Amino acid sequence: MTPLQLSITLPGWADELERVGEVHADPASRMALAVEASRRNVEMGTGGPFGAVLFGAATGRLLALGVNAVVRLRNPVLHAETMAVMRACARYETFTLAHGSGTDEPVDLYSSCEPCAMCLGALLWSGVRRVVFAARRDDAERLGFDEGPVFPETFAYLRRRGVVVEQGPLRSEARDVMAHYHSAGGPIYNG
Amino acid sequence: MTPLQLSITLPGWADELERVGEVHADPASRMALAVEASRRNVEMGTGGPFGAVLFGAATGRLLALGVNAVVRLRNPVLHAETMAVMRACARYETFTLAHGSGTDEPVDLYSSCEPCAMCLGALLWSGVRRVVFAARRDDAERLGFDEGPVFPETFAYLRRRGVVVEQGPLRSEARDVMAHYHSAGGPIYNG
Repeated sequence: MTPLQLSITLPGWADELERVGEVHADPASRMALAVEASRRNVEMGTGGPFGAVLFGAATGRLLALGVNAVVRLRNPVLHAETMAVMRACARYETFTLAHGSGTDEPVDLYSSCEPCAMCLGALLWSGVRRVVFAARRDDAERLGFDEGPVFPETFAYLRRRGVVVEQGPLRSEARDVMAHYHSAGGPIYNG
Repeated sequence: MTPLQLSITLPGWADELERVGEVHADPASRMALAVEASRRNVEMGTGGPFGAVLFGAATGRLLALGVNAVVRLRNPVLHAETMAVMRACARYETFTLAHGSGTDEPVDLYSSCEPCAMCLGALLWSGVRRVVFAARRDDAERLGFDEGPVFPETFAYLRRRGVVVEQGPLRSEARDVMAHYHSAGGPIYNG
């Protein structure tokens, strides 16, 4: 039997958004890119309304970008956040983005939506130290997306291990992208 | 810039364990394979002491196998469970293993250890309907592995969505593999 090939790629249009090393000094600019990725993913028909970008926390250098690719790549693990983490780790040849182990500065994730249970776990293992989101869990759930088993003590647990999860800018813009996807009949898989 | 290549493979020795379509009628035989994968992963030096196998619940047909590949493939998302799910989905060209959507029978996961927070989320999204584990969360934690933010209400949440997580056979055998890895100085990354 030929070995199973399993490869993970961004959609072609995303190459021009993932400008590795570009500096985004302003947090609003970091989030704008995550939301833009979510918007393009919907417009181009390449996946669900979710985008995520990893930045060096101090410098604002872009490390990697991800978009939801569950349906396109037929892989339920490929949320925007997991894809961004996998791409950064592949690029820097490390299994951890923790400062001092895999990277020379702490790493922050900007996500167009509050991460689900799987992604919060993945972010803990990834060494990312701060997660900033635009749209909130209940914005996603109102449209039928499930965020999985996440509770108030989840965030306390993460905080004790040095991972902060917090609301950032552009909530209504990110929510608009999700609503547009929903009203255009985009599939709410795992609904 | 050349596009980033990100490919996900089993170690070579695992091909002979992943005999797709082979029938394991007995649940103990299903778990024995998951524990054997964890043991071989340690012996061959290809990753952490964790193995997982997906089976058709009714027929016992083997669908896919995974082993921990975090360090080998430098990818913090590649626990045994996520790898098994990704391989099954790639093989059957589906983003869901839910009965009637992606597969013609319900799918069960047998894992050598109780899944972490990330993997429980991934299993929920994968459509797997039953998760059976050998070693327990506290067996892993006693060796310094972190299982992430998992709480009693996590399992209640999963159950409401049709996913059962339960203790199966071979706990002490699976625990022995983890203890062997630990005493041989295997890295407890993300410890």
